[in-house]
Formats: sequence, structure tokens, C-alpha cells
Amino acid sequence: MNIINIVKNLRKNGFDYDPEIGLYVNSKTGLPLTLFFDENSSRLLLLDQCKLPYEVAAWSTNNWYDAAIKGIKGMIVRGSQAIGVAGAYCLVLACIDICNVSVGEALKILFERGEIIRSSRPTAVNLNWAVNRIFNSLKSGEIVSLDDLKTRVLNEANKIFLEDLILNRNLRMNGLQFFESGDVILTHCNAGSLATVYGGSALSILSEAFLSGKQLTVVSKETRPRSQGFKLTVWELNKIGIPTIAITDNMVSKSIERFKINKILVGADRITRDGFVTNKIGTYDIARIAYMEKIPFYVAASYSTLDLERHAYEIPIEERDKDEIRALYEYEISFMISKGLLSEKAVRKWPSDDKLTESEAPENFKIKLYNPAFDTTPSKYINRIILDIGVYTPSQIKSLNRHDINCKIGEITGRELLI
Amino acid sequence: MNIINIVKNLRKNGFDYDPEIGLYVNSKTGLPLTLFFDENSSRLLLLDQCKLPYEVAAWSTNNWYDAAIKGIKGMIVRGSQAIGVAGAYCLVLACIDICNVSVGEALKILFERGEIIRSSRPTAVNLNWAVNRIFNSLKSGEIVSLDDLKTRVLNEANKIFLEDLILNRNLRMNGLQFFESGDVILTHCNAGSLATVYGGSALSILSEAFLSGKQLTVVSKETRPRSQGFKLTVWELNKIGIPTIAITDNMVSKSIERFKINKILVGADRITRDGFVTNKIGTYDIARIAYMEKIPFYVAASYSTLDLERHAYEIPIEERDKDEIRALYEYEISFMISKGLLSEKAVRKWPSDDKLTESEAPENFKIKLYNPAFDTTPSKYINRIILDIGVYTPSQIKSLNRHDINCKIGEITGRELLI
Repeated sequence: MNIINIVKNLRKNGFDYDPEIGLYVNSKTGLPLTLFFDENSSRLLLLDQCKLPYEVAAWSTNNWYDAAIKGIKGMIVRGSQAIGVAGAYCLVLACIDICNVSVGEALKILFERGEIIRSSRPTAVNLNWAVNRIFNSLKSGEIVSLDDLKTRVLNEANKIFLEDLILNRNLRMNGLQFFESGDVILTHCNAGSLATVYGGSALSILSEAFLSGKQLTVVSKETRPRSQGFKLTVWELNKIGIPTIAITDNMVSKSIERFKINKILVGADRITRDGFVTNKIGTYDIARIAYMEKIPFYVAASYSTLDLERHAYEIPIEERDKDEIRALYEYEISFMISKGLLSEKAVRKWPSDDKLTESEAPENFKIKLYNPAFDTTPSKYINRIILDIGVYTPSQIKSLNRHDINCKIGEITGRELLI
Repeated sequence: MNIINIVKNLRKNGFDYDPEIGLYVNSKTGLPLTLFFDENSSRLLLLDQCKLPYEVAAWSTNNWYDAAIKGIKGMIVRGSQAIGVAGAYCLVLACIDICNVSVGEALKILFERGEIIRSSRPTAVNLNWAVNRIFNSLKSGEIVSLDDLKTRVLNEANKIFLEDLILNRNLRMNGLQFFESGDVILTHCNAGSLATVYGGSALSILSEAFLSGKQLTVVSKETRPRSQGFKLTVWELNKIGIPTIAITDNMVSKSIERFKINKILVGADRITRDGFVTNKIGTYDIARIAYMEKIPFYVAASYSTLDLERHAYEIPIEERDKDEIRALYEYEISFMISKGLLSEKAVRKWPSDDKLTESEAPENFKIKLYNPAFDTTPSKYINRIILDIGVYTPSQIKSLNRHDINCKIGEITGRELLI
């Protein structure tokens, strides 16, 4: 499918080009696509999530290396599904400037560039998956020219782009049944449209329910240290018009009592065969409190988060840089210095580097900043796992297999293109 | 007791004057007094907690109004016990500049000023209590001159100051039995020496245990939105040398698993007769998770937090300004603008004022920031309440009465002055 058809399909599904942002925006939700490849100018456009929610602007490039390093690694685009599609278009850009070489030499260059693209976010499964998928698609049938190579890479990237849109719609429809007028739903981090090309993950179920007339209120947790809940989720829900209450991460019990929260809905970074869910740090704390309060706990995610080969205890939990926790305080220090509220003697970082340690051993122990990105919620706390391919109890996950999943995906994407 | 005797007692208890900070510092713990009244210069010195942990500096004034408004209301001094003592010295300053009037007129002026001092932090029980106590002390025996009035106010303020120090030591000694070598203790907010004149509240029990040779590790929760856990508690524990792990508020379950946390210790803002504990928002979330994990949960506080007349459901929970949540993000926006990372179109506040609402009604609902300062933990989650006057189970609280408490305090403060 080429750009003319893609744009036609976007328009048919209610998307209009917003010249101020530079991206297509859905007229019902007010949400932009998080990425778009403009074939006419050969530029990849990304909604700049480093600027959100302070400013809504697109970032663009026609250089594959910038797209990988500034765009993906620099987190202008984030969210596992969105990163996968962005990675596919990085390969499209990586093709475009190859010229005056044989097809074989071009492929060699492309493979090398693919390695760099793939490693720009090493833990994101989808990025690796998208790069592999494009290379696999090149294996069927001879590539007759450089132009043929470029067209085939572009076609596969467009297919990945459209599939994300179609599957996301299916996820929303699968989740709709669980939410009713009057519900007050607690969510965590940003499992939203912003983490996909458009309209995917947990929040999109709520936007579908809300736009179909159900009166919902959402409580969004800040999600320190990167504050995706306070920044992205509040912004996204506000765009759609869903009443939103922003809280910090230590207000769960109090907010349940105060706002009569009756449902929990979160995303997932990995769902293992035991039905355990690895998701943004803080999910497990909510799950336990919800369990004590007998509040149903729902997880919504793309099929791509399924890890059917492993159990939860086999999943390594990424510990991220301590600067993520310190960043906001560094801004505070700069601010205080600029206002004359601190003297020249003040530290520039808290805790300062010389006070920090990586070890937990009491010897020479000073201060350790602990920054795990995820935690794992055991299956007993989870009521339903809502996927694009269907709805499951945690214990049903182990009975899923790759073949059935692929059949279901084929079935869904084979239907009419509804976004 | 006058300043010569106070200083003599401070020195006898291991405090030395630190000219760089401008306050007496304990040589064992490295912690300064949070406040001191210098009779020679008639100045009230406060450890500037607005600058902590970035800079350790004293703030001082000889003006009663500045002490009340900049010092107490502006939170240069904070923590219920410390505020009470600071309020007493505000009255001392409020006396000093009264001259050329009769004693009766002086008392009238002092009462008026007392009202302003009292209302500088309306919810802090101890501030009101200290102002009342000084006025009550003036009722016994005729005040023969302005000098007599000034001396009597100063003497009573000094008594309040010293009592805080003595009672804090008793609290530490009462709590010592609950902590052993190898313990990994989770704490929340800053229930520490910094919230008292010196050496009081929960953390001081840990410092006493640590300095007596017990190997402890403390996990400190950030405590958004004001981050007292990340700033004050980490600073205080680091001063003493206790190994400290700083986490954000959403890492409780994960940290219990990772660091084998085996005890919880928090402070209290109010303990009601039903043995329920109102404390910094987030305490209840921890208590529930600890309960599921069967981890003992201890509360440590001064007798002054007891509210024996009321039940928990009668306690109003203060909702604080939404700017407390937004502040760190405003600094981030300033920083991004200064680095050219945002354009002139960017918002200066997130969420911007026009997107905010105070209401939860779905009509015209945009974004609400919810910022409750406290939550209330039911008695069933609490193992022991450690007070300066003794150690109790939650169910024993209702059997306490004012007379017995006053006798115990008299007994403790009547002993040798140990700080």
C-alpha cells in the first residue's frame, strides 16, 4: 500500500492533517498519530514525546541514523509498539540514500545499518521484531534492482504501520465490555495511544468507551521517575475529554476511598506463560491494594507482549540510570540558584555523585538510588488480560500458541481496514 | 534556665558550635539543632530546611513577624515538634521590642502578636499548644515589670526547648528494643531529628540503634509531592552514616522483594483513641502491603500527637495546594526553555491553570490535581506505637488519659538533663 492509499484510509477513518503539528490527527479523539512516513518528501515524522505535554510538535528527519539515534534512542518516540514501527521506517530511510551499488552490496549496507537501528533500544522486543520482519520479507523472490529493494522495504514498513492501527482497534473493541458508565478507573504510567502508532493499549479502550457515551472518570498516577502518568496520560485523556484526576504514586488507598475507584486498568511490557504481568514499576503495589479492596484488575496489551516460552521468574528486570530519579531535582537546584535561593556552595546534584554507591554492602555504603523500571504482578491479582487477539484469564495464557496467534492476526488484518 | 546553662548542657551532651552553619551540631550524629535562640544577640536561628539537602545553612532573625511568616509559614522550620518550639521563641522576639508601655498594655500587644504567630501554620497542633503554654505560664504570680515579663516568656520558651530534647531521648530509648543488626527498615517522609529540635521521631530511634553498633539499612521513599523522604531523610541518614537506599513511592513491593525489608517505621501526625494513625500520605499504602507480607509496622511519635478525644473518622484531611505537585515540572519547563528544548508556544505550567478544575463532576471536568497531605492507617495494620512516654499496642491507646501522661512527662523531664 502506498502513501496515496494510506492517506485515503486515514481520511476514511476520520484523520485530518493538522498543519500546526505536522501530523494526521483523529477528529474524534483529538489525538495525533505518533509517527508517519511521508513518501513524497521521504521524511519520517515523529510526535515529539520529549516535548509533551508542554508542547505538541512533530520532529522529522530524512536521515536514517538520526531517526535511530535521536528519534528512537533519544525517546522522541517511545512505547514498544510505536518503536517497532519507527524502526521499520528507519530501514526505509536507510535504503533511500544507497545508490550506484549492486543489489547485493546494497543489502550488505542495509544489514549493517539494521544492526545499528536494532540496538538503539536493546530491550524493546518490537524494534528487533520489526527489523527482522523486514529482512525476512526480502527473502521471498529475487530483488531485481535498487528501486525494487526500496519499494519492497517501504511496502513492508507500511504493512507494519497499518497492522498496528488495525490490531489496536481490535484491542479497544475487546476491552469495551469491561467498562460502564459511572466507572472510576485507576491507571498507571502511559499505556495509551501514545505508545502505539495510534489508538492502542489500555487507555484507548477507555477512550472508545467514553466516546461511545459511557461516563468515565480516570485517576492517573504520576509514575515516578519519568512521570509518564502525570505528563502523557493526563495529556492524552485531556485531549479526548475524559475527566481525569492526577495523583502522586503514594495516594492509591486514599484515592480509592475518596473517589470510589472501582476498576484498575494497566498495560503490560511482558506477559509470561504463567499469566504473570511485568509492567511499569508500581503496578504490583496497586494490584495488591486492589486485591485487598476486591477491585477488579485488568491488563490490556498487544499480542506482541506475550512471552509464551518463559515464566515470570526468568524475566530480568532492567535497572535504569539513577539520573532519572535525580533529574527533576537538578532542575529545582538550577531554578533556586537562578533565583538566588541557594549559594555557590550548594550541591548541583542531589545526592551528589560522590555520595552515591552501586553496592548494598554496609561497608563504605553511602546512598544508593534504586531505579527498577518494572515489577511483576502475580496472576492471582489479575482478573482479565485483554489482548488484541482476544480476552483471557491469566491461567488461559499458557494454552496459547504461536500458530493460533498468527491465524488470529491474519484473520483480523485480513478484514476491512478499520482504524 | 538561661543561655549559659543551656549551652553548658548542650556541650555536656556532645554538641559543639559549628561556625560554618551557625548552629550547634551533635558530634556523634553530625546533625545540627534545627533551631536555637541566641540570647546574647536576641536572634532566633533556624536550620534552613528550604535549602536542605542542597545546602546546610542557618537562617536568623530578631524580628518576631519575620520569624512567624518567613520562618514558620515559609517552612524554613517544619515538623510539628520543631514548629511548636519555634513558635515559643517567636513570642520571645515579640516581647523584646515592646518598650515604654505598661505591663498590661505589653500583654495586650503580646496576645495580638500571639494570634498571628499561632495562625502562621493553622493545622499544626503543637504551635497552638506552645503559644497557649506560654500565656498560661504568665498567669501564675504578678508580672512586676516589662523585664520580668520578658524573662518569664524566655524562661518558658527555654523550658519547652529543653523538654523537647529530653523527651526525644526517651522516645529513642523506648524504640531501641525493636531493631536489631541486619534489619532493613522502610520509612516514609521525614519523621526525623529535623522535625524536632533535635534527635526526635522515628529516624532517631534508628540512629540510636545504629550508633550503638547495630547494622541497619534504611530504605527511604521519595514522598511526593514535597519529597521529604528523598531530600530530608536521605540527607539525615547520610549525616549519621546509616546505609540508605532511596526509592520512589511506587517501588514498595519490588523493594521488599529486592532488599528483604523486614520492618516498617514511620512517624505520626495524629494518633486517635481508636489507635488509628494519621500520617503523611502514602503511609496507608505501605501498611497494607506490609500486612500482606507480614512485615511488622511500627509508628514512632511524640505524646503531643495523641488526640485522645477523637476517633479517626472525625479527623479532617488537609488538601494542599496543587502547585506542590506542579512545582518540579515548572522547574523542568524553565530548564527546557533555557536550553532551547521548548519553543515560546510551550505551556509554562502543566497542567496549565485553564485546564484545571476543583470539581469532580463530569460536567466541564478537565483535570483535577488531588493533593491530600495525609491518610489514616487503621489500627489492625499497626504492631506498636512507640511514644516518648511509653510503648503501646493500638488498642492500649484508648486507656491513656491526660493526667497519667502529664505525670509521666513530669517524671521524665524531672530527671537529669540527657539529650
